Amino acid sequence: MVKPRILTVTYQLIANKREDAEQLAENISIEQSVEMPVDTVPESAVFSLPCVMQVEPISEKLWKAVIRYPDSIIDGDPTQFLNVLFGNISLLDGIKLLDVNDEYFTDLLAGPSFGIEGIRKKLNISSRPLSCTALKPVGLSAEELAGRALQFTRGGIDIIKDDHGLADQSTAGFKDRVTNCLRAIHDGEQHSGKKTCYFPNITTSPADIFTRFQIAVELGADGVLISPQLTGTEAMHDIAKSARVPVMAHPAFSGPYVIRNNSGFSLELYYGKLWRAFGADAIIYPNAGGRFTFTNHSCNALNHQMRTDFCNFKPSFPVPAGGIDLSTIPQWITEYGNETIFLVGGSLYKQKSGIEQATASFQQMLGLDE
Amino acid sequence: MVKPRILTVTYQLIANKREDAEQLAENISIEQSVEMPVDTVPESAVFSLPCVMQVEPISEKLWKAVIRYPDSIIDGDPTQFLNVLFGNISLLDGIKLLDVNDEYFTDLLAGPSFGIEGIRKKLNISSRPLSCTALKPVGLSAEELAGRALQFTRGGIDIIKDDHGLADQSTAGFKDRVTNCLRAIHDGEQHSGKKTCYFPNITTSPADIFTRFQIAVELGADGVLISPQLTGTEAMHDIAKSARVPVMAHPAFSGPYVIRNNSGFSLELYYGKLWRAFGADAIIYPNAGGRFTFTNHSCNALNHQMRTDFCNFKPSFPVPAGGIDLSTIPQWITEYGNETIFLVGGSLYKQKSGIEQATASFQQMLGLDE
Repeated sequence: MVKPRILTVTYQLIANKREDAEQLAENISIEQSVEMPVDTVPESAVFSLPCVMQVEPISEKLWKAVIRYPDSIIDGDPTQFLNVLFGNISLLDGIKLLDVNDEYFTDLLAGPSFGIEGIRKKLNISSRPLSCTALKPVGLSAEELAGRALQFTRGGIDIIKDDHGLADQSTAGFKDRVTNCLRAIHDGEQHSGKKTCYFPNITTSPADIFTRFQIAVELGADGVLISPQLTGTEAMHDIAKSARVPVMAHPAFSGPYVIRNNSGFSLELYYGKLWRAFGADAIIYPNAGGRFTFTNHSCNALNHQMRTDFCNFKPSFPVPAGGIDLSTIPQWITEYGNETIFLVGGSLYKQKSGIEQATASFQQMLGLDE
Repeated sequence: MVKPRILTVTYQLIANKREDAEQLAENISIEQSVEMPVDTVPESAVFSLPCVMQVEPISEKLWKAVIRYPDSIIDGDPTQFLNVLFGNISLLDGIKLLDVNDEYFTDLLAGPSFGIEGIRKKLNISSRPLSCTALKPVGLSAEELAGRALQFTRGGIDIIKDDHGLADQSTAGFKDRVTNCLRAIHDGEQHSGKKTCYFPNITTSPADIFTRFQIAVELGADGVLISPQLTGTEAMHDIAKSARVPVMAHPAFSGPYVIRNNSGFSLELYYGKLWRAFGADAIIYPNAGGRFTFTNHSCNALNHQMRTDFCNFKPSFPVPAGGIDLSTIPQWITEYGNETIFLVGGSLYKQKSGIEQATASFQQMLGLDE
């Protein structure tokens, strides 16, 4: 017998007393499913009604609620899945999604096509942490950006990704940029004697993102960069599913879903489960101690969630970023371990020794592959 | 001489003193453009640097900052425009976007193809407010939903939109639902003697949304419903630009960008300017006094922004929704005026008189067209 699939969502709620928390959980279950008074739901649709399974205190004013939704209201549509998770209740304050049952993801979403192992294989690096940098700034010509890519490659960088603000600006048009950068990287590899991967940014309209993806792959890009909260999360999923090259996800525009203690999504659920399930092979997040506000504790939890057993999905590579100073890399390696891609941008550009030498120092900090 | 286009963004910042506010504005300008230390930006890209134009106190700890960005970093890409507005700074707390200069929208975005006048023309109603309801609940068959559409139409409703949770579930597959509902509506129109418009929900993956749009239009739907924060905002823009039928935008998943006083976007900028510029002919928002938390003041400001002169764009129809009780419609008409679509769902379903009679009462409250 096939067990009916069920979506089980765990929420954190703010309420003064149990009855309020129970009422809020009940309201959420209706808001996110039939969206009409329960007594007006016709007999033939009562199977669409979710069920509040549990309401338990977490602390004085915080409650944990567990709601089960019938799969039939989603029925294989990943965008509708996001809508059931957080569509209307996104407009209410004080509701935080903590978790979703792992089994639910399995049939609905594909997960990464490459994952940590697939990216390592492209680089032929089996165990050490990986280095990554961002090609920038916007405004440089394709040739100038390629010149920088050459220097990073000569220094031995593992992955060069476009700055997420590089689109198809006339200063460095997409095809021109990818062509020039790949050529420069191939030149640089002759010097470094090792592989450097290039991940151009393909974030744009749904009408054009698949074309850019196709162009990037045909030109020989090793991966692509996507900001799923700008393109729509399912655009990333569709591209990742095609399994042509790895996808690196960028958190642009996603902050409001994750930066609050009592509203939105937990970091682990949003980046660690959702983005991984939606196919991100590597996931950039703002590291603790940089220009943003994530804590060490959060980052460690996030790293764990990206790498741990989760459905039948390949692990995603955590990519801490956002103001990491080159000199701190050894300490971050100690804290985060080898299954990490360290993304250092500005700090490499500002080293007095120049990009190539700064990159060589970065590579040295990563140690030898075993 | 062609004046160079410039994007001017007005922010509200939290800072204890002027120097902090100035530093924060400077940081934002870098974060949202070159994203690297200013002294590392090469000569040939300095034209990419934004300029902080103004930092002024609003109140004790709130500041207004105005930053000008060169158009070249966006260069015609609406998704990159959103990235420059709020990409990385979405991950920081305490930054709120208040406004963007009107001129900037003009060349970049198309605005509504139909607007208030275009929707009125479809209904042949020139001045009175319009009625709208949501077809639900998910779980009913296409025939059952069509039966409800028939009742609403017999009662004389102006617009029936799908519940935003109706996708392509096997209980009421998309094509089957649209076909059955349109047939029922045409039958009902024979009874009511007036036009009823049907807006099916086409929110889904970027790979499928254009197909659903095409099917809806070919079957004769009068408009479509899209949740742009789930599909990617530019999916809505592309569909709206095609100018086949009007687009109604649903706020699912958009809450975290607008519900906070000191972070995200102002309501007027997000729904009133951005969504209008991205082509929404009608924009659903959670009305004051319902299940959500917008105030009367906010709703009035939002209505104004949707309807007022803004670039060369057609006005968007404000669609207050989210728990409006049928009995309160007269008071809302007095407050919001005639250029409003009142979306009443649950309250129509629960009237003891039945859907058809409840809808007839709703229509009576709207008065005669002049």
